[in-house]
Amino acid sequence: MTDPVLAHALDRQPQLIEDLKRLVACPSVGADPAMAQGMEDARQLVEARLNAIGFRDVQRLTPADGGGQPAIFAQRLDESGKPTILVYAHYDVQPSDPVDKWDTPPFEAVEREGRLYGRGISDDKGPMMIALDTLAAFVAVEGRLPVNVKLLIEGEEETGSPSLPGILETHRDLLAADAVLSADGARWRPDLVALNVGSRGNTGFEMRVQTAGRDLHSGRYGGIVANPLHVLASLVASLHDAQGAIRASGFYDGVADPTPTERAEIAAIPYDEDDTFAAIAAKPHGEAGYSTLERLWMRPTLDVNGLWGGYTGVGSKTVIPNEAFAKITMRLVPGQDPETAKQAVLSHLKSQVPPYATLEIYGDRGQGGANAVPPDHPLLKAAVAALEHTTGQTPLKVRIGASLPLTEIVSRVMGLDTVMFSFAVADENFHAPNEFFRLSSIPDGLAAWVQILRQIAQIDPDDFAPYRR
Amino acid sequence: MTDPVLAHALDRQPQLIEDLKRLVACPSVGADPAMAQGMEDARQLVEARLNAIGFRDVQRLTPADGGGQPAIFAQRLDESGKPTILVYAHYDVQPSDPVDKWDTPPFEAVEREGRLYGRGISDDKGPMMIALDTLAAFVAVEGRLPVNVKLLIEGEEETGSPSLPGILETHRDLLAADAVLSADGARWRPDLVALNVGSRGNTGFEMRVQTAGRDLHSGRYGGIVANPLHVLASLVASLHDAQGAIRASGFYDGVADPTPTERAEIAAIPYDEDDTFAAIAAKPHGEAGYSTLERLWMRPTLDVNGLWGGYTGVGSKTVIPNEAFAKITMRLVPGQDPETAKQAVLSHLKSQVPPYATLEIYGDRGQGGANAVPPDHPLLKAAVAALEHTTGQTPLKVRIGASLPLTEIVSRVMGLDTVMFSFAVADENFHAPNEFFRLSSIPDGLAAWVQILRQIAQIDPDDFAPYRR
Repeated sequence: MTDPVLAHALDRQPQLIEDLKRLVACPSVGADPAMAQGMEDARQLVEARLNAIGFRDVQRLTPADGGGQPAIFAQRLDESGKPTILVYAHYDVQPSDPVDKWDTPPFEAVEREGRLYGRGISDDKGPMMIALDTLAAFVAVEGRLPVNVKLLIEGEEETGSPSLPGILETHRDLLAADAVLSADGARWRPDLVALNVGSRGNTGFEMRVQTAGRDLHSGRYGGIVANPLHVLASLVASLHDAQGAIRASGFYDGVADPTPTERAEIAAIPYDEDDTFAAIAAKPHGEAGYSTLERLWMRPTLDVNGLWGGYTGVGSKTVIPNEAFAKITMRLVPGQDPETAKQAVLSHLKSQVPPYATLEIYGDRGQGGANAVPPDHPLLKAAVAALEHTTGQTPLKVRIGASLPLTEIVSRVMGLDTVMFSFAVADENFHAPNEFFRLSSIPDGLAAWVQILRQIAQIDPDDFAPYRR
Repeated sequence: MTDPVLAHALDRQPQLIEDLKRLVACPSVGADPAMAQGMEDARQLVEARLNAIGFRDVQRLTPADGGGQPAIFAQRLDESGKPTILVYAHYDVQPSDPVDKWDTPPFEAVEREGRLYGRGISDDKGPMMIALDTLAAFVAVEGRLPVNVKLLIEGEEETGSPSLPGILETHRDLLAADAVLSADGARWRPDLVALNVGSRGNTGFEMRVQTAGRDLHSGRYGGIVANPLHVLASLVASLHDAQGAIRASGFYDGVADPTPTERAEIAAIPYDEDDTFAAIAAKPHGEAGYSTLERLWMRPTLDVNGLWGGYTGVGSKTVIPNEAFAKITMRLVPGQDPETAKQAVLSHLKSQVPPYATLEIYGDRGQGGANAVPPDHPLLKAAVAALEHTTGQTPLKVRIGASLPLTEIVSRVMGLDTVMFSFAVADENFHAPNEFFRLSSIPDGLAAWVQILRQIAQIDPDDFAPYRR
């Protein structure tokens, strides 16, 4: 017989989808100051939903020094003898460009073939709505939540969470909890029951190469001045060696090679490499000496996310630009200190700048270390039990190559571990055109969230003590 | 006593400036299809002026197969026993971007401190108006021109003159002349009386590197797929060696090193390198083993004029783009075949493409070889005599690093030599923001154009015969 809370939540799915469409219609691109209204609209929708569910103390949190995009807080502390869980999600989304590569407008959720398309629908608006509707169903059916729940819905996840440490520090008492359960993250594959137990860290910066005071005509100056695009290309080309390793001295400090056991565990995970690469029309490429999953989970990377300079319009312009730009981010693994890794890359770049060019570094992206959940953490065990209950399978423990600044910041500032329990799937075009969310993930997610809350209710709060730092 | 034709032309300078301002207000950017009306407006203004001057047979010329931007033709054949000169100019201009670097709007000619600012004002609308007003003054004062003049005012100079060969072939009889006198080109420096006797050739293309079927999230794919910006950066970095020479095998085929005599002549030209580079806030940089002027006049070059890919907006986006683009042009010297040089670069690039990326080449830029005027050519001698008359100095013979497709095309298709007789100055921000034209160049140019036409009137048309091919 279906859990009455789950039955209620499943019945409400049409309204959940309507709520989700309204939320996607708010273009909450935190990276773009022009989208401020979209951010505000998203906040107001989320706040209205929290009030409707019956959450208390709904409020916006900012660091003591103000600024940044506020996070939304709410709580229901219904069970004083039970654990207190901080549930995390985020309402901000990635930019939508290149807009012309979307089949339908990015901020208009469109349903086709069992999927909802829209920017942010999978990362993280859909998974967030699953968590909220689960909590709503408990309140509606049982009049209370089975555990104490605090909600923290961030607005700066896609821009590196620069305010999150300050928010956690400033509101330490309000946010105090036994562990963090995240509705962000992603299921690795639709066909596999798995739990993410690790994520990569990240850091980044933007750089500008300048070679002259103004743009120059290649007929008047070609051959006698440096071209900043050539300089920038050489700098970028110098960042990786022929075997795909990052050439910045000190970048790998603290990185441990996967152990034979880890390599064996990873090798045992069902993974069809041909399918993976066929789906994105790409060929495997990466650091020599590692398998694809080892590269993705256990090895740090560096990518130029954007590079530009000179004339990029239609046709030809015989200009030697005077400046060129690149945006760079890195993915980091356990053992790496983000600032050390970033400084290693900056030192390398600075050492490569020729005397006829200048290099400027700017653009604070926020940064965070990699994270791993202890294998015997009570919340992780609850998640395993919940998925065993809803799927009949023991979830594989996998990692993700992406970064969750949350996990590192929560660990550093609050001394807590985070379990990622998202019902997004990693193939849903996050951060790319035609982002989508599977409609089938909604009932799966509701069932799992109902069950994990019931599992947490079985935990003695004292069991979390050894894992609090 | 001032030549009465010159006196008339000098008196009309205020109207010339008004005419020029109206012409600059037509955004005749041939490279941009969105600017078609600006091209048409510029044509109509020029045609109206030619009719007002008293030119005959004013008409638009296109190749037999149509297409492209038409050139404007007009003629006055007033002196059957005198030489026939084809006067060349162009009405199209470079794109105006980056528009935000202009101090005043690019298509609004603004006068300040003895200069007129505006896109195309120096290249080539101002110099063209000087030629036209000189011809107008002859007709107004003497009722006729002292030599036979045909005008060819092109609309595709800034896009590599792709239709010009076809126009010259199709209208060979209409355009037949003894030599070509160009109002395009540039005086090397405002302080030096000089004539340009050589120009570099050019060729180019656009390229696209692709590594996947769509943009990817660096957290989901970072480290396991290639980044096209890394591949493109490596391709660009591979194009020059550490000494600044171009690495494409065969690119230098046919290029002769400057002889000791040429090196001595170039070394004797007054040239303040410190001033040159201070003016553009750049440091000298180029191929090892050559002086700055040797690099500029005698050595071929390759420049990336634009490069782009990935996220280039505000803030950070952790994307691995699936494609990256670059626009490349080359400057060529005598002895180089443009197609051979271009194919050498393409072969080099193709040989460097890794197996996990594809390279697509496209974008026909038109191309032309380098050019040099024979030292004893009658029209060159007339130009020397004209400048000696108006300045009291014997002009230095210099080259320019820029390309004039005209000279190569006219030589190849019509078998004629071209003398460049522009009153633009090479420091006037051609192809860059804040292009300007010195007001003082107008009286200087009018005097020289009156004088060169009088000098040409002294030449026996048969003297051109040895130079026609």
